[in-house]
Amino acid sequence: VQVAVLGAGSWGTTVATLACGRNPTTLWARSPDVAREVNERHTNSTYLADFELPERLTATSDLEEATSRAELVVVGVPTHGFRDVLKEVAPYVHPWVPIVSLSKGFEQGTHLRMTQVIQDVLPGRPAAALTGPNLAKEIMSGYAAASVIATEDLSVAAAIQSVLMRGLFRIYTNHDVIGCEVGGALKNVIAIATGIAQGLSVGDNTRAGVISRGLSELTRLGVAMGAEPVTFAGLAGMGDLIATCVSPLSRNRTLGERLGKGERIEDILASMKMVAEGVKTAGTVRELAERHGVEMPICREIARVVSGEGTAEESYRGLMQRRPGHESEPG
Amino acid sequence: VQVAVLGAGSWGTTVATLACGRNPTTLWARSPDVAREVNERHTNSTYLADFELPERLTATSDLEEATSRAELVVVGVPTHGFRDVLKEVAPYVHPWVPIVSLSKGFEQGTHLRMTQVIQDVLPGRPAAALTGPNLAKEIMSGYAAASVIATEDLSVAAAIQSVLMRGLFRIYTNHDVIGCEVGGALKNVIAIATGIAQGLSVGDNTRAGVISRGLSELTRLGVAMGAEPVTFAGLAGMGDLIATCVSPLSRNRTLGERLGKGERIEDILASMKMVAEGVKTAGTVRELAERHGVEMPICREIARVVSGEGTAEESYRGLMQRRPGHESEPG
Repeated sequence: VQVAVLGAGSWGTTVATLACGRNPTTLWARSPDVAREVNERHTNSTYLADFELPERLTATSDLEEATSRAELVVVGVPTHGFRDVLKEVAPYVHPWVPIVSLSKGFEQGTHLRMTQVIQDVLPGRPAAALTGPNLAKEIMSGYAAASVIATEDLSVAAAIQSVLMRGLFRIYTNHDVIGCEVGGALKNVIAIATGIAQGLSVGDNTRAGVISRGLSELTRLGVAMGAEPVTFAGLAGMGDLIATCVSPLSRNRTLGERLGKGERIEDILASMKMVAEGVKTAGTVRELAERHGVEMPICREIARVVSGEGTAEESYRGLMQRRPGHESEPG
Repeated sequence: VQVAVLGAGSWGTTVATLACGRNPTTLWARSPDVAREVNERHTNSTYLADFELPERLTATSDLEEATSRAELVVVGVPTHGFRDVLKEVAPYVHPWVPIVSLSKGFEQGTHLRMTQVIQDVLPGRPAAALTGPNLAKEIMSGYAAASVIATEDLSVAAAIQSVLMRGLFRIYTNHDVIGCEVGGALKNVIAIATGIAQGLSVGDNTRAGVISRGLSELTRLGVAMGAEPVTFAGLAGMGDLIATCVSPLSRNRTLGERLGKGERIEDILASMKMVAEGVKTAGTVRELAERHGVEMPICREIARVVSGEGTAEESYRGLMQRRPGHESEPG
């Protein structure tokens, strides 16, 4: 199967590395310099320093070249550039080619999930999302990891499984696309909250409490949006949430930790090379929560902090003062 | 409310410390030396070193003295001594007095949950379980924590809430007693599995995968035993599981880490002052899984390792070789 991976960030490059083991794979990088480096030196020092890439992985900065012969297109660009890249490739992608999203978040403004953007721009193509606890650098190091391919069409899921599964990287299928995408998007917001707790040095009980109450928040919103509750207890929900919240490699958790230590959001964002999707997602979630009538105290506080409306310490104090009732209630 | 806390381990002593803030509280210690130390020096150097206890907390090694005037009895002895202590206090405990279990595990042989043991030995008394992510030393340090009181009688839950809630220690109620107790018991087994993963240095993705697949295992068993699935997404399920799996303070995780590094189970157990309940629970879970026809690959491997039937490395390899299918399936 001829594979195109669009986006040469750390995760896109990692997925291209997995795919090229058994399939001719082209990685599209926006920057010609990055493409040239992948082709000539077999490295991607900007986004995946310290790793050697396979020699058989080829890169290009030309979208037509990457996609015109592709039988599977994997899209790993950040949510804010997702629709534009799809629009650009629309003339080249054959109508039956499955499109897999690697991006975790909602489209700003429309609040659409990435597979909805795919269906919007490339109607008729089977759309899927690859999600779960996947720290790129660990997978590049050959550590074991489990992931989820979410799509309603299980034969597409099986095809994608066979392209991307390799060694200790295991892919499970899940038909609950809404649940998997909402889980992947919202865990970045909870990761910021957990990072704040860690930055404020409030202990592992609290960190576990934030993760746990955070999962219950994102489950409530997901179910209101049409997801199945059980999905959030799986890899795309708690699995991803835990990996993001405990790993020192997570950008969103790291951003939260710096907020907790008192840094200003502008300064943190200015110093980060990669995109922390949770910042944008927090604002979207606040609006989605309102639209669906779901109470989400943790996400609301994080939205306040990342938009500069409040400080990390204030938001944490606000959360701690809520009266606890039955566990199924918000708060 | 006159409170008796039976068992002066780290968690029993912590709960007694919380209760004595607003209620006359007697802590029962099996060892007269520990009781004397609590009364005279206001410390419990054996189980809770480095903390000063309140002067108003009194201790005794006489069960009658501890319980004969108690209006609430909290039992924090390990599961293997749980029934015997209840039998000893049965003549003294008034018939309407609620009994709260702090112990996470099943009775060996009968496979009963601790609230079932309470109902067996002290019929008619309202039985409850206090569970959730509660690392004793963090609560003693004044960090925030959220906990669950599980009991079918919500008025009892409210009474216990008002006795034990203090400062940043928050107690939510939950009517699903089976779910809360199964969650608390099984998380110790998954914590051993996570510790093994860490001892073998297999990365945060894998750690998150083990926690995540572990939660799905314990949810399947719990539901087969009559629990509600949603409980396992809450504090008594994933909350407790995460705190135990990420904290360096957890005995079960630490035991797993030492197994992963190649130490023998006998040597580890011989060097531990406190009880790692997960070791006993692993054997019980293997039998419960068989009785209820539930596949539990992680718990089964851990039962093999802690009984000396296999090594940590073998068990890990066994888990990694399973074929992944749909996420809702075991494996």
